[in-house]
Parts: sequence; structure tokens; C-alpha cells
Amino acid sequence: MTKWVYEFGGGTTDGDTSMKNLLGGKGANLAEMSSLGLPVPPGFTLTTEVCTAYYDNNETYPDDLQAQIDAALKAVEAKTGKGFGDASNPLLVSVRSGARASMPGMMDTVLNLGLNDETVEGLAKLSGDRRFALDSYRRFITMYANVVMGMHHHTFEDILESFKEDEGYFLDTEITADNWETLIGEYKSAVNKALGKDFPQDPQAQLSGAIDAVFGSWMNERAIVYRRLQDIPAAWGTAVNIQAMVFGNMGDTSATGVAFTRDPSTGENSYYGEFLINAQGEDVVAGIRTPQTLTKLAREKMGDTQPSMEEALPDVYAQLADTFAALETHYRDMQDIEFTVERGKLWMLQTRTGKRTAKAALQIAVDMAAEGMISHDEAVMRIEPASLDQLLHPTLDPDAPRDVISIGLPASPGAAIGKVVFNSDEAEAMAKAGEKVILVRLETSPEDIHGMHAAQAIVTARGGMTSHAAVVARGMGRPCISGAGDIRINEELQQFSAVGRVVKKGDIVTVDGATGQLLAGAAAMVQPELSGNFATLMEWADSARTLGIRTNAETPADVETAASFGAEGIGLCRTEHMFFEASRLGYFREMILADDKEGRVAALAKILPVQRDDFAAIFRIMEERPCTIRLLDPPLHEFLPTNEAEVAAVAEATGVSKTDLLARAKQLHESNPMLGHRGCRLGISYPEIYEMQARAIFEAQAKVMEETGFNPIAEVMIPLVSISKELEILSAKIADIAKAVEAETGKAVTYKIGTMIELPRAALRAGGIAQTAEFFSFGTNDLTQTTFGLSRDDAGKFMPDYVAQGIVEKDPFVTLDQNGVGDLIKLAAERGRESRPDIKLGICGEHGGDPASITFCHNCGLDYVSCSPYRVPIARLAAAQAAISAKSA
Amino acid sequence: MTKWVYEFGGGTTDGDTSMKNLLGGKGANLAEMSSLGLPVPPGFTLTTEVCTAYYDNNETYPDDLQAQIDAALKAVEAKTGKGFGDASNPLLVSVRSGARASMPGMMDTVLNLGLNDETVEGLAKLSGDRRFALDSYRRFITMYANVVMGMHHHTFEDILESFKEDEGYFLDTEITADNWETLIGEYKSAVNKALGKDFPQDPQAQLSGAIDAVFGSWMNERAIVYRRLQDIPAAWGTAVNIQAMVFGNMGDTSATGVAFTRDPSTGENSYYGEFLINAQGEDVVAGIRTPQTLTKLAREKMGDTQPSMEEALPDVYAQLADTFAALETHYRDMQDIEFTVERGKLWMLQTRTGKRTAKAALQIAVDMAAEGMISHDEAVMRIEPASLDQLLHPTLDPDAPRDVISIGLPASPGAAIGKVVFNSDEAEAMAKAGEKVILVRLETSPEDIHGMHAAQAIVTARGGMTSHAAVVARGMGRPCISGAGDIRINEELQQFSAVGRVVKKGDIVTVDGATGQLLAGAAAMVQPELSGNFATLMEWADSARTLGIRTNAETPADVETAASFGAEGIGLCRTEHMFFEASRLGYFREMILADDKEGRVAALAKILPVQRDDFAAIFRIMEERPCTIRLLDPPLHEFLPTNEAEVAAVAEATGVSKTDLLARAKQLHESNPMLGHRGCRLGISYPEIYEMQARAIFEAQAKVMEETGFNPIAEVMIPLVSISKELEILSAKIADIAKAVEAETGKAVTYKIGTMIELPRAALRAGGIAQTAEFFSFGTNDLTQTTFGLSRDDAGKFMPDYVAQGIVEKDPFVTLDQNGVGDLIKLAAERGRESRPDIKLGICGEHGGDPASITFCHNCGLDYVSCSPYRVPIARLAAAQAAISAKSA
Repeated sequence: MTKWVYEFGGGTTDGDTSMKNLLGGKGANLAEMSSLGLPVPPGFTLTTEVCTAYYDNNETYPDDLQAQIDAALKAVEAKTGKGFGDASNPLLVSVRSGARASMPGMMDTVLNLGLNDETVEGLAKLSGDRRFALDSYRRFITMYANVVMGMHHHTFEDILESFKEDEGYFLDTEITADNWETLIGEYKSAVNKALGKDFPQDPQAQLSGAIDAVFGSWMNERAIVYRRLQDIPAAWGTAVNIQAMVFGNMGDTSATGVAFTRDPSTGENSYYGEFLINAQGEDVVAGIRTPQTLTKLAREKMGDTQPSMEEALPDVYAQLADTFAALETHYRDMQDIEFTVERGKLWMLQTRTGKRTAKAALQIAVDMAAEGMISHDEAVMRIEPASLDQLLHPTLDPDAPRDVISIGLPASPGAAIGKVVFNSDEAEAMAKAGEKVILVRLETSPEDIHGMHAAQAIVTARGGMTSHAAVVARGMGRPCISGAGDIRINEELQQFSAVGRVVKKGDIVTVDGATGQLLAGAAAMVQPELSGNFATLMEWADSARTLGIRTNAETPADVETAASFGAEGIGLCRTEHMFFEASRLGYFREMILADDKEGRVAALAKILPVQRDDFAAIFRIMEERPCTIRLLDPPLHEFLPTNEAEVAAVAEATGVSKTDLLARAKQLHESNPMLGHRGCRLGISYPEIYEMQARAIFEAQAKVMEETGFNPIAEVMIPLVSISKELEILSAKIADIAKAVEAETGKAVTYKIGTMIELPRAALRAGGIAQTAEFFSFGTNDLTQTTFGLSRDDAGKFMPDYVAQGIVEKDPFVTLDQNGVGDLIKLAAERGRESRPDIKLGICGEHGGDPASITFCHNCGLDYVSCSPYRVPIARLAAAQAAISAKSA
Repeated sequence: MTKWVYEFGGGTTDGDTSMKNLLGGKGANLAEMSSLGLPVPPGFTLTTEVCTAYYDNNETYPDDLQAQIDAALKAVEAKTGKGFGDASNPLLVSVRSGARASMPGMMDTVLNLGLNDETVEGLAKLSGDRRFALDSYRRFITMYANVVMGMHHHTFEDILESFKEDEGYFLDTEITADNWETLIGEYKSAVNKALGKDFPQDPQAQLSGAIDAVFGSWMNERAIVYRRLQDIPAAWGTAVNIQAMVFGNMGDTSATGVAFTRDPSTGENSYYGEFLINAQGEDVVAGIRTPQTLTKLAREKMGDTQPSMEEALPDVYAQLADTFAALETHYRDMQDIEFTVERGKLWMLQTRTGKRTAKAALQIAVDMAAEGMISHDEAVMRIEPASLDQLLHPTLDPDAPRDVISIGLPASPGAAIGKVVFNSDEAEAMAKAGEKVILVRLETSPEDIHGMHAAQAIVTARGGMTSHAAVVARGMGRPCISGAGDIRINEELQQFSAVGRVVKKGDIVTVDGATGQLLAGAAAMVQPELSGNFATLMEWADSARTLGIRTNAETPADVETAASFGAEGIGLCRTEHMFFEASRLGYFREMILADDKEGRVAALAKILPVQRDDFAAIFRIMEERPCTIRLLDPPLHEFLPTNEAEVAAVAEATGVSKTDLLARAKQLHESNPMLGHRGCRLGISYPEIYEMQARAIFEAQAKVMEETGFNPIAEVMIPLVSISKELEILSAKIADIAKAVEAETGKAVTYKIGTMIELPRAALRAGGIAQTAEFFSFGTNDLTQTTFGLSRDDAGKFMPDYVAQGIVEKDPFVTLDQNGVGDLIKLAAERGRESRPDIKLGICGEHGGDPASITFCHNCGLDYVSCSPYRVPIARLAAAQAAISAKSA
């Protein structure tokens, strides 16, 4: 018999934190907290396997599920001494989703389930607070009718508002118990009117409905979108947690709150959270009431006038602080916690490893290592490599003048500049059209996910640091300002006003997520600081990794940046980029248009000194770090003009007639340029091009050696080889040039000759090619194109169909296709090493900066990866994690 | 110590026929004939390794070569009892090249070497014929000055002609011994005048010079061209044969001749050859004097007035006939022989397996099998599969009226129609421009090779059945008429006249190589006869082969042709060809231009009945042979109009505006269509297309089943799969359609669903794909393109450079690249079979008709190959040969 239901709390606990896949994150951690002896309201979890079975069997449940639920419910009754549906002593429960990975706000929750016209009176008697009981009942009706029965919550808010208007009330607290009773009647009528059926009174029926709704929410649209964005497979399913209710809204000694054991924004080692006196949990997360701080220090810092929890409920605060410490010690990581205080008693409702910004992640990892809680390797494993991206890009210049429009909460750090837009669909549409946008909303809801994803940053007028906008923005790495209270949004006019200023849709603003400032116009930026925690962690990463990290760069500026980010060499210097510069393009075109070899040689002679200077500049920066320089790769037609005006200009400049120019362009035209006359095929047809480039490299080495005393190391790379003989012929020519330059300059230049492996045949024939090649660099962009038979330029037309139908899980141009392309890489590495054991192997496709692909490269035993300058630190970290994981595997 | 020199003849023989690679064909067979006890003039062979060493070491010889030559020459002196350079009893030798493969007329020969002013007198005394001795000396000077010293033979011919004019002579026979002496003096002066040095008198120096010349001729331009055309590697090298001279020009009991043991043109079992009384061997091959027949029967057949050898020299003829029989018995194949009769004594100078036409090859193989000389398998191995092509194409209708211009010798069979051209460069240029040309020459020489290759057929005014033109044309499979004596070519006017008619350059003529008739205009043709020897041999082939043979065809006419050629199924029916027909193209364009799925479905509904009829027609012909039908493959833009007029017409026809039409075309434009939105990617984006096609297939099956009672077998093939899931999705849809059609028609249709393996990733992931695919068909055209990263459409721009530099030996689009592409095929076959042991594997690229590639497919264990209809017999034969070779390996 499959065990579908696991109990927790009140002494009997079936699960623990290791069972996350089965119980979901929330369920597993509730079980774990129970086992630790922490106060957890008793309950039980329906496993994720129930969800999977439900969807696998046409949305029906396993036969033996109900009996297990009944038994578990009986156990909760026994632990609490209450009865589910017992009019005199009713057990109320919450029903919540809980997937393997956190999906904040994505799925539905029902509280106070078990209330009906009879049990509400029992709750009134038991609590001695009829108003509380009726308030709970109306909350239950609102939530249940919305989540389970599909009604809009506005229906109930409208009834409430018009009632308050009629009575002349301003605040909810003015509503009496009797008033609530009247309103409950109206709520129930509204349900009947809208749906043609009564609000369910049977607690068992209520429970079944709620369970259906939670499982059903796994496949609602916003959950599907979230999963896609976060790479969560649908097959994981969600668990459902059914737990005895505790009440934070039983008066002034009751409260509810959320907290992080450390600051998730900065990583500072101080509690970070909010609570509300006399409220239910959903009130905090929803961001409707403005909550109070946990600590006195935080209150003072923010200049808040309401008392902190430390001040208002000192005993419970102390108990909470102990719990925080226990949880951090136990989990060895920063925790994100939900708790409720019911009449002075603390109850723990959730703990999980807290999301954090990249900056906070670094701070926490470095601190915890210093505290002795984790090792350096563990600290390295704690940082998501891709998240470093947030730290590596320019931020707002703190010293530049700022034109502040409004100040809100610093909900998610980072700076962004973009055009104001007021709704998510439009944000998405503008982003698709290439615009950078800032999404400005009163508050965000799960329906805004796509707009938040499309935006550079998010600004909300309402909500706290743990509001939906804040939590989601931090998860996505988007800068966010929440609770920017002076902003008045006018959706109709598509503008907002703040302190008398008006900002219209399309106006440029700057968001500073670190301070909560919203600035007019595009503010000045500064380069990132690469010291402190970043430097510490990178040092630990470097001592863990075995994979070398190089960069793909050709301009001195990029090479400088990469060097400052720790690049240990150049893995790919694309020489063609050098020809596109206006000053050289003319000569290069002259070469293309020349009638014969002599003409080409004459034009190339003019490029030689310029190209030599290009290489010299790079060698000066890289000193004795190896520089892989790829000889000309793209087809020649890419260098010819395409439009009328340019053709005329080039004809004028080169003295070639327009007719001849167009004829040459036509002659060079290709049906499939990807598979055409490019790479080493040009070197075979026009050896003088590669000879000029090789000469420029070797002469630059000699020059820099003379100048600096350094011994620059060149790795001359031949692209697009598919046949060993191509490399043999070209390699011999290049070696001849080296000999000639050495003879002319009297300097011995240090170089290797190798090849890109970027065609399937090159991978298959790697053994033969390695007899000439001293190194291989896997050009995974082209290798992916040819292995899949997929043109990157054209794939956009059908890739959306492929993603929608689940044919590809990840874009193979972003994350290396390990099964297909990876298979070729492994095979090439094996065959290459067999014929030349000391061959140097690296990768220079864009995959070189993708953490998953880097792990693959580590496991293949490559010597290095090469990536764009800004990805160098990411690659260093990913390489370290790959090494650490492999060690412990 | 390396043995560089091998002796033969006169009792001591070092080599045998198995040593062809080392001794060359001529050397090995001279040794073999010696061993058989046949009369071979003694001599020795310098091995091909000398040639290789010579070129590997900068054209210098191995140190120990000269000593070995000296020793071998001493042995020949001993065997003949003559002395090299001995004035009283001179040994004369011939120096001839002899490569591993026959290269007729490609390389140089020197006869009578060893003659000088002194030895010529010795020869005169010895032979008792001073005129003969002097004639031999002048021949030697002419040849040696030409071949070794680089002078033109016209120089000597001019001297001779003007001498004859001065003396009033008409025939060479009128020239006296004294005249020759005078002329020899003039010849020697001419050499001195032209080269500034004397003609060498030292026989050792003569010999060294001749050896240098023969090795040097291995790298002359015509040898290089011939090797390229015949796929002979330069690394094979040539051997040099030095052999004691025997003289066919010692009077009327001397003769020289060439012969085939059976007719090389028809295969008839009767001697076929020519001889000349009182002549040296070169006289026959050069085609200058018109030779006599060997047999009386042949003489009578040709109406020749000169006596045959059978009549003129009956004793020697009888000896020759015995030798022919001995050689055929020994070599078990038809032989091509050179012989000389010196004063009534027969000497064998060469034997080799004779070249023959495809028709003759069939006749000889079938006859020899009937004679019990060879087995059926050996008979099958005797036919070059590609040569069958000559027999499979239409030939001249024997019953149609013929406008005969001239009749010559039927030198090489086959018929061809083309435009007359008079020189080889022009023939090549016109052929490159797409014209079919007939090369008409007085006679051909090795300098004409490129023009003969470019021409459809060759006609010469001079020369016999074994003239240069005849031998080379037969080797190339070109029809040829030689010795068309009525033709008078006027090169200046670029025309020829024959019996009063004038044919100008560019006029259309028809060559009938089987009868020797040259016809005016384009004559009527008939389909080939596939019975007789062809049918017999094919039957033997079929019983030997294990590989199935299918065809690539989609029109009923092609399918019929293929069936008549023995296709056992269709391996590739390209459905897109069906859409290009005018009647459907409109609907198909309507589909492409539709705004939405509904519009597409509506247009496809119009195509359905037409497409169903297409398939029904094929099923009717193929009955219960399997038909692999590939669903739509090319990108949609291929179906849209490209020029202005067509765009207007389509706009008119479809009611879509020109602007919208151009916009759609632009939207569909791709950078690399080879790697774009095509194949199954279309099926994923527009499932309705494949659904319509699947429905058409299944409905056609049901219809034909109803009609004929046959159970047509469909294999539905999905193109361009790279990811298993593509096939899973489409396969499920197609199976649903089959179910629906079965329900609608009440007929159970027999079908499989499978995929092309034409992308490297598909090959690598074959294991996963085979979980869905019931068959694989290797699409080696696209697989070659993607594995090499080489667009077939664009490769033409640089392939000539690749061939010239020896980077590719064979076009990978013609002969499968076994090392790269083949590696993927092997891997895919293995992985596919691992996950589905009974998966059917075939190949449907153009390689399916290439014999070398078929051998590879057999060795990979594929189930079948598929090729174009006319290649089916070739494939059957190649498959049989692969099976027989594998059995004996």
C-alpha cells in the first residue's frame, strides 16, 4: 500500500527535511521542526505523489487516499483535543500547497476551514470572542469562495465597503459581531446568487473542495508561467499540507509575522522581518496593512512609530530569537520563517532556506564560514553562479546628482533605467520590441509575473519588504522599490504623480533598488567594486577549481575588463571584428575586390601594421598569459556593402565600378553562408590572408618582447577544420611565417597551432586532427548549429512552438546539449588525447559562461573554458562548484 | 638492403603476377609469363619503390640502385650472349614505364636503346641487314631525342619529308641504307643545333637518361590528369622495365602485333587484334599504318584485302593461339597482349587483363562461367558496377531511318548525340557551359584526354581499333568511331566534309559506336534491353547479395522504370515534388499564405484528393513492396514565387495582395535554409500538413486494397528529426490518423512510422529515437552537409582548390565519407539496434547508388540501399560484390 499521507506535530512525525521531493518544502520542514521539538500546530501532508497520480489518472485520486486522510484527521483531532465539525469544540484547519521548490504566491491557500454556521458558535464560545469567530468565518467564506469556488474576492469587498458606507464606518475594527453576522448572511447569498448553490456547510465537503483546489492550482496559468521561468518540471507536482489552525487574530497578545534570520537584501547578520498584532498570516504577505518591525534597532533605523515586536511582546520575541538560532544551527543556513502568536503562545508555521540577493548570499556565505558554521567549499557552493551577474554590472554613481521623484522601500537591490509602463501586458510587449521598461503598479499580484519578468525593475506604491512585488523581484534579480507611498497612479491618463510632479508612460526613470529612490531621467552609473566578500569568495573558488578560465575578447577594453575579472588567458580573439573598423574595412574590401593574388597581397600589406598593433595591444595587457587568436572566419561577402548608398561609397573609395562591385557581391553570395566558404576554407583559397595574420601575430610578439621583456604566448587557431589535411597545409604555412619572423627579428616567439572543433566531422576525426593540432578549442556555437542542423538565425521562427510543446527544455545555444553535442565533445576529447596525450582542450562557445555547461566541461576533463569578460567570475565560481561536487560525488 | 631491381626472362625470374604493386602491371606480368615458360625477352624491372623514393627525396635515387642495375644488366648480357655497348655484338634494350594500373599512352617509352655510331655497325653485321640497323638507329634517335631530350618529333619528320621530296621518294621503303646514314647525320646535327650538345653515344648515359625520363613522366601533366580521372593515387608510382630488344622489323618474317583473346567490344569468344609485318610495336599503337587482321574470319568479315596473320604466318599464328589459350587458362580472364615476331620466332612483350566495354564484360563473364572457367560469384565480381550505366540508357533505334554521313570503325560502343567541336579545349569549355559535344579529330593524342572526357563521344578520321582514341574511349565508356576515312577536317573553317556533305562546328550529329556510323542530326533512340547476359548476371548477383535494393522515386514513370530494373521497394518518395506540379502549387501556396490554421486546413483539403491519387498510383505499381514516403521536407519559402511576373500572377490567383505576398515571403526568408524551418519542424508548427499527408497515404492504401486486393505497405518517414520528442509527437498524430482512416474505411492499413537520420544529433541520439522509430533511413546528403558543415550549393566555390591541393580525394557527396559520416552511421545503427533489435535500416541519399558506398552499407549491416531508378541494377551488382567480398574476407 502506498503511503500517501504523512503526519507531523504534536508528538507523531513521519517525515523529515530530507523528504522534500515527497512532502514538498513546507511539509518536509514542518516535519523537521516538529522533530526538533519546536512548537508546530499538528497536521498532515498529502504527498507530491498524490498530485502526480491525480494528473496521471485523468484528475482522479488513488482509491486508498480518503481512508488515509480520515485516519490522519482523526490523529489531529486526538492531538488537539478538538473535533472536525464538532459544533462545541471545532477543529479548524488550513489547507496549503507546498511544492518541492518554493513558488511564492503562485498557489492557493485556504484558512479557517471547518467553520460553518454551527461551528462558528462553538469557536465563539471557546475563544470567548464572538466577533473574532464571526470575523474568521467571513474570512473563510471569502477565501474559500474565491480559491475553491472561483468567485472574485471583489464581490465580498464590495459588500463590505457598501455596508461600511451605509453604517458610516471607516475602519474594519468598527464592525461589530452582529454586523459580521449580517454580512456573513449577505456573503452566503452572494455565493448562492452567483453560483446557484449554497456555500458548503459540511466540513468534510469543504476539505475535499480545498484539496481539489490546491492540486488544481498546480496547473493554473500563473503556476505554469512561474515554473517555466524557474525551470521547475511540471512532473514534480505539489504536496498539500492540512494543519490545525492557530490564530494570530485573537486580540492584542496575538500576532502573526514573517522573518528572515539574516537580512536577505544585504546579508547583514540581524533579524529581518515584520509582524502584525491581531492579524492572520495572509494579512502580512498580502501587503495590505503596513506591518511593524521585529527588532527595536530596525524600528529606530526606519524611524517607525509603531512598537517593534521586541518591545511589544518581549517574552515571545525572546522565544522567537532562540528558535531562530536553533534553526540556523540546525539548517546551517539563513532561514525564512512564518510564525503566529496565539494569545502569547508562539507557533511555527514554516521554515525554509531564505532567498537572498547575490550581495546577501556572498555576505552570508563569507560570514557563516567565518563563524565556523560552514567550510570554504560549502561557502562556494552556496552562491548561485548566475546571480553574480547582478554584482558585475555598473551601478548608480553615489556621488552623481540625483533628481529624486519618490522614495519607497529598498525591496530588491540593483539599479535600472527604463521607460515607465503601467501594466504587465504592455511591459511584455514593449520589452519584446527591444525597449527597456520599468513596471509601475499600485501593487503586484501573481498575474503580473510576465510583466515583472519583462521589466528592468518594478516600482509599487503599496506593500512592504515582504510584499509580493518585493519577494518575486528579489527572486528574479530585478531591482524593486515597494511601498513608494507618494506615488498616485492614474491608469486612465497613463501617468503617475508624486509630490506634484507628473511622470507619463514612456518617460525615462531610474530605479535605485538599494536605497528605494526613484529618479527622473537616466542617472549616472559606476563600475562595480570587486573587493570585499566578492574577492574573498572568488579566492576560495579559485583554490577549489581545476578548470582554467579564459575570456573571449578582442578589444583592449574588453581584454582589460576580463583581466580585472580574473581571466587567465584569452580563449578566443576574433580577428574579423578588427576588420570591421572603418579604418581597416576599406583595405579589407580592396583585398576582396582585387582581381588576383597580387592585388590581394598588396591590400593585405596595408592591413598588416594595423593588425600587428591590435595584437601588440592585447599581448601588452595579457603579458605571459596565453592568447588564442582565431584567424579570419566569416565569409567574405559579410564585408561587402549591402545598400545602394554604401555600394556607391565603396565604389568611389576603391575605384571599382558599381557594376563590378555588385557582380563580385553576387559571385560571393551563398545559399547557406553558415556552411559556406569561410573559416579555414578561406585560408586554403587565399593563403595570403592567413599568412598576413600569422605575420602580424608573430611580429607583435617580437615587438612586445622587445618593449617589455615579457614573453607573449600566442595560440594560433584555425577555424572550421573538418579534414585533417586542411590543418596540415595551413599549419605548415604558419610555421614557415614564424620561422621567417624569427629570422628577421632575432626573437624566438612562443606559439602553438591548433584548431576549433566546431563541426561534427572534426569531432569524429579528432584523432587525425590532433596529429597536427597542439590544442583544440570547442566552438560550441557552430557545433550546436551543425549537430542539430539548426541555424541560430532562423530558429526563432519555430523555437516558440518547440518550447510550448516541451520538445526542448532549454535553449541549446544557452545551455550545452550534453546528450548530443556533449557526446561529440567527449568523443573528440578522447580521440584527441589518444593521439596527443598532452593536447590542450578548451571551449570558447558562449556555453563557456553557462554554469551547467561548465560543470559538463569539468567532468569531461577539459583544461579551460572561455567566456565573455562579464561572465569570467561566474565561470570561476561554476568551475569551483563543479570541482567540489565532483570531489564529493 | 632494399631490393630495387627484379629480373625476368631467360631462366631467372624474381617476380610474379602477385607483385603488381611493386613491379607494376607490365613488370609483374612479364615475370609471370617467364615463369610460365613463355618466350619473354630477358630484362629487369626497377620497382615502383624507386619512383616513390625518387620523389620523396627531391628527385634523387637511392644510393645502392646503380649497383643493382649494373648487376641486372650483366645478367641480361649473359642470358642473351650480347654486350651492352659491345660494338661487335651489341645488346639493345627497350625502356618502358609500367604502373600498378594501366595508363595507356600516358607515359613514355624508348626503344632500341644502346645504339650508337659503333654498335649500329655491329647490329648491321649481326642481322645481315644494314638498312634495318640504320633504320633502328634513326628510330632510336627520334624517340630518345623526343622523350628524353624534349625535342619535338616533327623536327625529324620534317627532315625526313624534305629528304624524300628531294629524292623523289614516296614511301619510306624506298629509302636506302645509305640514305638512312645521311639522315642520321642530319638528325644528330639537328639535336646539336637545338640543344647545343651532342646526341649521347655512351649506352650507359643513354640508359640513365631514359630511366630519368620514365620516372619524370610520372609527374607530367597528362599523367596527372589521367590519374585524377581514374582515381589513381600519385603515391603508387611507376616501375621501369628494361628489356632486351627483339625486332619485328627484320623483314617479311618479322612482325609486331597486339591482340585481345576475346573481342573487347562485344565479348565474343574470338581473337581480336591487329599486326603489321616488318614493323616495330609503336607503329601499331600509333595508328599510322593501317594494320592487318589476326584471323582469316576477321579479315573476311571486314572485307580486308591484306592477308591475315593466320594466312601470312601460319606457324607463328598457331603458336600464338596456343599462347592465348595458355594465358586465358592461367589468368582466368580475357588478356590484352603485345607480341613481336623476329624472323619467325614469337616473343611475348606484354600481357594484361584486357579492358572491355560493359557489354563485352557481361558476355565474357557469362561465357567463362558457362565454360566452367569461373564460378557465378566470380562472374559477378568481374563486372564493374558503374559500367552497367552504359547498358541502362536508351540506345539508337535500329529500325529508325538513318542519315549516314560517314562510316568508320566501331571503336567503342554506345550512342551519343551532340554538337560537333574540333578541339579539346573548346570541347571542355562547351561542356562546362552545359552543352553536349562530339569531339571530331584527325587522331587523338594524350593531350586530348580532357576533351575526350568532356565530350559525349569521339570521332577520329584516322587510326584502328587499338588506336589511342579507341583505347581511351573504351576505358572512359565514351562511344567512339575511329578511322572514319572519308572525313576531311578543315580546322581553319571549323568544319568537316564527307562525301560531299559539309558539317560545321555546332551542327548536331549522332555517333553510333556499335556500328561505326556517324549520323546527321539527332537520331531516334530506344529503351535498353534488360534480358540475355544482363538478366543472367543480375540473377547471379541477386542470389549473392543480402542487401535489399530500393529506389528513390515519386512519379509513376520513375517507379515503373525502377520496378523494371528490379527495385524491391521505394526507399524515398519525396512528397514535395508532388506539390510543385502546376495544378497543386496553387493550393499549396494558398495554404502558405493562409492567415491561420483554418485557412491552411481549407487549402490542404483541396490537396488531399490529388495527393491520395499520387500515392494510389505508386501503390498500384509497387503492389506489396514497401514504399517509404517522406512527409514534406523543404522550407515553405521554396514554394513562393521569386520574380516580379510570378508574384503578380500568384497575387492574382490567390487573391492575396502583392504587398502581403512579398511580406510573407520576406517573413519566411531564411539566412541558412538548410538549417532552417523545414522537415519535421514544419510538422511541429503546422501539424495539419502532415495530418493531410498521412491521411492521403492511408486512404490511398485503403482504396488500392479495395480495388486490387493487394495489401500496400506504407512506411511513413519523418524528415530532419534531431530530438526524440519531435518524432514522438508527430508519430502519435500520424497513428491517430491511421486509426481514423481504418474506422472510416473498415480496412486495416499496414504501415510503419520511422525517420530520416540526416543530422549528426539524430545519429548520436539514435537509441532514444529508435524507441519510437520503427525504421531509420540514412539521409546521407544532408548528413554529409551537416557533418562537414558544408553546403552542397556553395561548395563549388572552393572545392576546386580542395581537389587541387589534395585535401579531398573524392567528392563526399558522391562517395560516402566513411571516416566521418560513416562513423556516425555505424554509431546510429548500433545505438538504434540496441534499443530496437528489429529496426529496419536503410540509406536513401545519393550514395545509395555508389558502389563504394554500397559496400560500406553492406559492411555496416544495413537492410537496404535506395537509389535513383537507373542506378538500381548498379546497386544490385555492387551489393552482390560487397557480399561476395565480405564472404571471402
